[in-house]
Amino acid sequence: MVEEILKQVKQGSLSIEDAKKQIATYENLGFAKIDHHRKNRQGFPEIVFGEGKTKEQILSIINVIKERGDNVLVTRISKEKADFILQSNSEFVYNETAQVLYWKDATRDNKQRNGYVAIVCAGTSDLRVAEEAAITAEVLGSNIRRFYDVGVAGIHRLFDNIEEIRNANVSVVVAGMEGALPSVVGGLVSHPIIAVPTSIGYGANFQGLSALLTMLNSCASGISVVNIDNGFGGAYNAVLIDQLAQKGELD
Amino acid sequence: MVEEILKQVKQGSLSIEDAKKQIATYENLGFAKIDHHRKNRQGFPEIVFGEGKTKEQILSIINVIKERGDNVLVTRISKEKADFILQSNSEFVYNETAQVLYWKDATRDNKQRNGYVAIVCAGTSDLRVAEEAAITAEVLGSNIRRFYDVGVAGIHRLFDNIEEIRNANVSVVVAGMEGALPSVVGGLVSHPIIAVPTSIGYGANFQGLSALLTMLNSCASGISVVNIDNGFGGAYNAVLIDQLAQKGELD
Amino acid sequence: MVEEILKQVKQGSLSIEDAKKQIATYENLGFAKIDHHRKNRQGFPEIVFGEGKTKEQILSIINVIKERGDNVLVTRISKEKADFILQSNSEFVYNETAQVLYWKDATRDNKQRNGYVAIVCAGTSDLRVAEEAAITAEVLGSNIRRFYDVGVAGIHRLFDNIEEIRNANVSVVVAGMEGALPSVVGGLVSHPIIAVPTSIGYGANFQGLSALLTMLNSCASGISVVNIDNGFGGAYNAVLIDQLAQKGELD
Amino acid sequence: MVEEILKQVKQGSLSIEDAKKQIATYENLGFAKIDHHRKNRQGFPEIVFGEGKTKEQILSIINVIKERGDNVLVTRISKEKADFILQSNSEFVYNETAQVLYWKDATRDNKQRNGYVAIVCAGTSDLRVAEEAAITAEVLGSNIRRFYDVGVAGIHRLFDNIEEIRNANVSVVVAGMEGALPSVVGGLVSHPIIAVPTSIGYGANFQGLSALLTMLNSCASGISVVNIDNGFGGAYNAVLIDQLAQKGELD
Amino acid sequence: MVEEILKQVKQGSLSIEDAKKQIATYENLGFAKIDHHRKNRQGFPEIVFGEGKTKEQILSIINVIKERGDNVLVTRISKEKADFILQSNSEFVYNETAQVLYWKDATRDNKQRNGYVAIVCAGTSDLRVAEEAAITAEVLGSNIRRFYDVGVAGIHRLFDNIEEIRNANVSVVVAGMEGALPSVVGGLVSHPIIAVPTSIGYGANFQGLSALLTMLNSCASGISVVNIDNGFGGAYNAVLIDQLAQKGELD
Amino acid sequence: MVEEILKQVKQGSLSIEDAKKQIATYENLGFAKIDHHRKNRQGFPEIVFGEGKTKEQILSIINVIKERGDNVLVTRISKEKADFILQSNSEFVYNETAQVLYWKDATRDNKQRNGYVAIVCAGTSDLRVAEEAAITAEVLGSNIRRFYDVGVAGIHRLFDNIEEIRNANVSVVVAGMEGALPSVVGGLVSHPIIAVPTSIGYGANFQGLSALLTMLNSCASGISVVNIDNGFGGAYNAVLIDQLAQKGELD
Amino acid sequence: MVEEILKQVKQGSLSIEDAKKQIATYENLGFAKIDHHRKNRQGFPEIVFGEGKTKEQILSIINVIKERGDNVLVTRISKEKADFILQSNSEFVYNETAQVLYWKDATRDNKQRNGYVAIVCAGTSDLRVAEEAAITAEVLGSNIRRFYDVGVAGIHRLFDNIEEIRNANVSVVVAGMEGALPSVVGGLVSHPIIAVPTSIGYGANFQGLSALLTMLNSCASGISVVNIDNGFGGAYNAVLIDQLAQKGELD
Amino acid sequence: MVEEILKQVKQGSLSIEDAKKQIATYENLGFAKIDHHRKNRQGFPEIVFGEGKTKEQILSIINVIKERGDNVLVTRISKEKADFILQSNSEFVYNETAQVLYWKDATRDNKQRNGYVAIVCAGTSDLRVAEEAAITAEVLGSNIRRFYDVGVAGIHRLFDNIEEIRNANVSVVVAGMEGALPSVVGGLVSHPIIAVPTSIGYGANFQGLSALLTMLNSCASGISVVNIDNGFGGAYNAVLIDQLAQKGELD
Repeated sequence: MVEEILKQVKQGSLSIEDAKKQIATYENLGFAKIDHHRKNRQGFPEIVFGEGKTKEQILSIINVIKERGDNVLVTRISKEKADFILQSNSEFVYNETAQVLYWKDATRDNKQRNGYVAIVCAGTSDLRVAEEAAITAEVLGSNIRRFYDVGVAGIHRLFDNIEEIRNANVSVVVAGMEGALPSVVGGLVSHPIIAVPTSIGYGANFQGLSALLTMLNSCASGISVVNIDNGFGGAYNAVLIDQLAQKGELD
Repeated sequence: MVEEILKQVKQGSLSIEDAKKQIATYENLGFAKIDHHRKNRQGFPEIVFGEGKTKEQILSIINVIKERGDNVLVTRISKEKADFILQSNSEFVYNETAQVLYWKDATRDNKQRNGYVAIVCAGTSDLRVAEEAAITAEVLGSNIRRFYDVGVAGIHRLFDNIEEIRNANVSVVVAGMEGALPSVVGGLVSHPIIAVPTSIGYGANFQGLSALLTMLNSCASGISVVNIDNGFGGAYNAVLIDQLAQKGELD
Repeated sequence: MVEEILKQVKQGSLSIEDAKKQIATYENLGFAKIDHHRKNRQGFPEIVFGEGKTKEQILSIINVIKERGDNVLVTRISKEKADFILQSNSEFVYNETAQVLYWKDATRDNKQRNGYVAIVCAGTSDLRVAEEAAITAEVLGSNIRRFYDVGVAGIHRLFDNIEEIRNANVSVVVAGMEGALPSVVGGLVSHPIIAVPTSIGYGANFQGLSALLTMLNSCASGISVVNIDNGFGGAYNAVLIDQLAQKGELD
Repeated sequence: MVEEILKQVKQGSLSIEDAKKQIATYENLGFAKIDHHRKNRQGFPEIVFGEGKTKEQILSIINVIKERGDNVLVTRISKEKADFILQSNSEFVYNETAQVLYWKDATRDNKQRNGYVAIVCAGTSDLRVAEEAAITAEVLGSNIRRFYDVGVAGIHRLFDNIEEIRNANVSVVVAGMEGALPSVVGGLVSHPIIAVPTSIGYGANFQGLSALLTMLNSCASGISVVNIDNGFGGAYNAVLIDQLAQKGELD
Repeated sequence: MVEEILKQVKQGSLSIEDAKKQIATYENLGFAKIDHHRKNRQGFPEIVFGEGKTKEQILSIINVIKERGDNVLVTRISKEKADFILQSNSEFVYNETAQVLYWKDATRDNKQRNGYVAIVCAGTSDLRVAEEAAITAEVLGSNIRRFYDVGVAGIHRLFDNIEEIRNANVSVVVAGMEGALPSVVGGLVSHPIIAVPTSIGYGANFQGLSALLTMLNSCASGISVVNIDNGFGGAYNAVLIDQLAQKGELD
Repeated sequence: MVEEILKQVKQGSLSIEDAKKQIATYENLGFAKIDHHRKNRQGFPEIVFGEGKTKEQILSIINVIKERGDNVLVTRISKEKADFILQSNSEFVYNETAQVLYWKDATRDNKQRNGYVAIVCAGTSDLRVAEEAAITAEVLGSNIRRFYDVGVAGIHRLFDNIEEIRNANVSVVVAGMEGALPSVVGGLVSHPIIAVPTSIGYGANFQGLSALLTMLNSCASGISVVNIDNGFGGAYNAVLIDQLAQKGELD
Repeated sequence: MVEEILKQVKQGSLSIEDAKKQIATYENLGFAKIDHHRKNRQGFPEIVFGEGKTKEQILSIINVIKERGDNVLVTRISKEKADFILQSNSEFVYNETAQVLYWKDATRDNKQRNGYVAIVCAGTSDLRVAEEAAITAEVLGSNIRRFYDVGVAGIHRLFDNIEEIRNANVSVVVAGMEGALPSVVGGLVSHPIIAVPTSIGYGANFQGLSALLTMLNSCASGISVVNIDNGFGGAYNAVLIDQLAQKGELD
Repeated sequence: MVEEILKQVKQGSLSIEDAKKQIATYENLGFAKIDHHRKNRQGFPEIVFGEGKTKEQILSIINVIKERGDNVLVTRISKEKADFILQSNSEFVYNETAQVLYWKDATRDNKQRNGYVAIVCAGTSDLRVAEEAAITAEVLGSNIRRFYDVGVAGIHRLFDNIEEIRNANVSVVVAGMEGALPSVVGGLVSHPIIAVPTSIGYGANFQGLSALLTMLNSCASGISVVNIDNGFGGAYNAVLIDQLAQKGELD
């Protein structure tokens, strides 16, 4: 690109002043490329963190994104705020459990493929986080399968599903309280696991610290961890990995 | 006992002054009974915490206990200190892994019985704590069975032994790193579990804090917890429970 | 059981396809046995953790349990939610102090026996947790005796009751603030103690951390600890121990 | 496999007793499959955590592995212990910086491929952890490229290399002190990042806690975290991801 | 001053009693000088911390200050309280984002100068703190320039502005979540940086602890830190530094 | 004093220059009075904190103090350093348990009195701290009585001595592990208690944090706390209180 | 007392059965003596911790105390609860700042004396705690003097009052934020200081932890510490000390 | 600079290929300018953090720096390592207290000026950190004045020096234990204060955490904080500020 600019300068078809501007732009594009790169992946939406933003702020951000024609994903958005957005954006979908609002261009559908992300969840109380992960992964373009309520206290439920979990490209494992589930899953599968601690628990749980430490100290290999309650982050990592795996499948 | 004293006072066979002393003694005996009670259980030794004591101090304590003819259990005692004790007490046994020195009156053997305490241990690095528990439980008079290296990262090893663990009266479950083992065992057995976190691990393990929090927050019921690395305490609790169960068996 | 299946296969009375299914079931039953085992104990109810569930969710869970004819215990349920359940389940009992709702089949009464669980409580502010423990233990089938307001700051009240506490099979000792009570009780009795720290206190109490650490570091032997405010967990452990002791008594 | 057994039972070519044993074996194989699976991947070695093990223990473990003909990777092993192993295993390689000892079957070489894992490291003090990651990833079968001393305080060094980092399948980003590097890299690349906090620092660093929290709270997406100083864990995760990406490349 | 008093005593124009009082006053003035010194700087207002004070209390404090003719700055004051003050003080200005209320004597304007304080802010969620800093610095008499939404996850936005940031006398850098921005800025500028961690974040952020530790451990030199969310404190430090720099410029 | 100066100035017997100096001196004396005040109390020694000082530094400090004829108390001084001091100061006394070195002018003996400070200590492991307190209190001029090894796990030993403890003016109560002793003593006596947590313990003791929190949260009134292992501080507070009580006794 | 009983038994004027009961009573009286002792001090009220109790519970406790004719002190009681009590107890006084409700028998007035307790307070935000201390000390029978708003940031205000603070028997020093005031006061006075940290502050204050640690680590001698916000506890300790000092004054 | 390149391209005096390289270089220079800028300030040395580096590594780094003719400052270097360097660099100066080794080009002397940095230090134990700050500031080119042993427990020593401290451009205030000194100084001076907490203390000091929190929560304005024991960082900040102030003075 710089070469182009220089050629035009040489040929006199571009003034030095304009060339300077374009090179400055190029510098920034050096970084902006990333965003561009992101847009190019099919179905990758713009993501809005809804917490701490007013409904009006969220709406105006959404309007900007829609103008660009991009998909939209809003996480941590309350029903009350979502309802406000839905009034003028009836094509959006709101999932109250996950506290997620999104719009996905139906024409940019995921290509046909076999690989999937396993969303594994310990208890029903961890559902909000697990669903945030599940919907995020779907909106970002991965196939997902849910394996819920398979916590270690009743480990046979996990074993009933272990073969199907094993066949995933990557697992997002969500657990609160003592957060032991990723360790057990980690010993049974051989793909990467993104562990998501939740703040579910009380007393010496310390708002998720217990589960977080458990996952960081896991004696099983192949487990990495995201922030407490960060279902979105777990899914985002999983989708990046799933896409690497899909590349092969699609070729 | 007070009644006896009062009768003697009434009969004049005991002076008021002596009666006062005996009643004072009785008051203290009210508390001393506990120790007496303890001695009466067969094989319950005096226990010495060796850490922070010099070898000379330990020896002099041991001499006092031996005069009373009691069994002896010294925990957290280094090989160097133990060797010093063994010079003059060759009948003692030292277990270097467990850092435990003990002497058990062979004639006060455990009665024949079926019940036992399961000592379940996650990893080979937790061995010191597990062996401290195992030997403590034995010296205190319980049958024990060891189930070692059955951590959650290779959970099939646990399942190979689960039936035998289930049949114990009580389990001491020792685990470091993320400490998830008690949760898994707790979901598979229906007897009480004493969970012992160890300080094995590094980084965000924080010297056993991770395992401790995991065990306190366990989603499985029937688990209670002792201090980090407290194999002795885990065993002591288990033996108390085992004795309650044995009472029935022996009747 | 596998033997049965194999025999039938050999005899041709069972198709290979059906045998495969039954063996698969057996595998799962290997784990499911636990639940079965649990149901077999007389009076052991299904337990529902009410916090974080809507009243409608709780009601639908209860309906499922009732169909099976099981006892029910709902912990951490507010008066408002309990009232909703009671409208259609007038046979249930709600204890507001303990925040516990339960139903117990009167015909499945505890057998006659002498043993009991001591529920020992430091201060009146710890009552919610102590009552959760007391009712849980009762609904799970143990006799219980309450020893309340016997904290260490007025230790003579504890001594007035110490003989009766000593005669229990196991004690659940509930204490907030500095949580010193289990240590004192532990020095006076010779049965297992389940210590329950509460979050009662302020400032450097750090929501129960102070009492929790105190109990984990107790210089008295025979004490194990459950999570902060976990009256239910304390009672559950105690009942498991009490049942081991009862076995002997009943024989 | 069960079908095979059942058929033989039906045909009478297998006794019921032997069939029972084989089915039991199968059950365990259900779990053992994992290990089998692991062995099947080309070049995946057995891994030994050297810390807390004596040199004799490490040697005897290595001997067992070598009998099976597997590659070997020993992490966290001091020079003194490594020298002891090397006396009888001169074909092994010891990397003192990384504190890693390994042996890799030269005939089981990685296939030719383009993809690689980027090992990105903030400061020279973090070298031990970065090299543990680098060698682990290599021994586990990935191509790696090192980008060292590119910390945020002199961010131009990072930018000089950013294009090459971007082209990796996955990055392992190692940083101590404030641990900000993964956030910056995360904003510049679009592949998954495994962040490894190190304990390098002093004072309010709290042995790596500062870097750990930084990475868990990263405002950049696509970052997951392993334990403090866990270079091995970072590499293990990265290799799993790299292998998923390679599958496509190799097809 | 003491000399004056002594001279008057010698001359008899001052009684010993009055001299004693004046000397006592002088002692206190020794300290009071500070406040005097403060008033003398042009435009330095009295500052009121609004949190935890009632609107009536704030009003009465303001009335006292106004009598003295000083500028006023009230931080951490809610809209509801500010509205109450504004009813009787319509000349005051309230900034709702910053939660700051102030009045500045227009006649005591900053002299003409070139130097300025850069207020650099990572994310839109940190705006409250950044604006508190910006307005504080302005009311205290510094020129300021805002550089907002330049967080490390999209580092090109920072680079677009880096030259202008570099030319400031001092920067106040506000960041929440992982708080990495000051480290990056610190590597790019050569003036002092006051880092202000914010409590923005969730989970392992621990109400700003993560950002605080990051900033304290920064590998870049020239960074010092104030309390979490203390935008005012950051600005106050910056203004003191800016004034030192201005002295030269004004001379 | 200022009056004197002013009079002399008025009379011309003091120059203004000299008066200024004297007034300046007076200002400082205003603070120095404290030290003076301290010296005036009988037997109050100069105190040296030995830790982190070389033996040479300690010796030179001691030499200065001795020139003034004051008593000397050196705390936290190892045997090796003490031996060095003793070579040239054979009249000094070293207590190895307490790690205290001191010299007390025999002619400045405590007056005859009845009151005393009770030094109450939970376990033999806390002896270093208790002895530091005991010797400090004695060297500072109080009568003391020791009540050692009276921890709550064997509470009858405490009760055997409670009457004598009650009669003290003030108690210093030293305890490690869970630190429950001050709470129990606090419920039994009606004088002030200075609680001294020790770092004795392991695991969840966190170097004395457990005992510290216990004491700060004590449900008994009349307890205040000093730093972990601060036997000196506990004694210093107790002596100040004891002196207030003695004033009455001596009158 | 036991002697009396024994004599009566000997004389036959007391049955053995009754003697046993009386001796048992005596045992308990051994502990009950404490409470008796407490009541005997003039003006010492019964103290009720109002937080977490309903207004009805508080009222019924008050009624019991009033029957015994004792003074009453209720701490941490909201205006709404206090108003409820005042309806039926119009003779009570409520202090809203201190959140304290009390009744003091005017006829049991403090004797005439000179000594007093200094209540020293850093900032106006700490007023609730300081006033809780001030009123508690008064109701418990001490003279008090208030020294408010004398924090270290404007240390001349402290110096204006230091002589009067020095003359107190004991100081209660209340401070939030960094809690430095007790250290400064401790260097200026020679009587005991009870330091009370408050939870006033934000960010890295961690609800009073900062001030608590400051006070525990004070480099000044003669300072002991109570729990965060525990104005009552600070005053209680101070009154115990003041009473020891008064004993002398009154003799 | 880009303009120059473009002009040459236009004129044909620079090939497009070479122009591309130069523009790329410029980009990097954009960052490299910083280092250049740094070198240009008179006397600013290269700084080496000696901890964790071998003496050979330090020597080789020094050799590189010397080749460039720059000043050198090595912090946190032990006497043993320093002696090794001094063998071949006898012109270097080693300060053992500060653990600092440096070389300063005598010909690049600081210009004559009046301004200075005050190094204020609480206790003699904090000397290592204070001296690290003092020497760093000097080697970086500032005049410094030392005010040592002026801690708050003997506050009159501070007041004896306060006027001279006030006249500094900036203060570095070093304190361990409770760290109260910056708050007191902050209330007495009106220039910026860089507070340096030290790890001096024990027990609840938690390796400097206590002093760190104190300084972050200071109620005095104008204080910012660096990491625990970071005397270098404190000085570096102070020098940046001092240089801003000097600019005016020099003009």
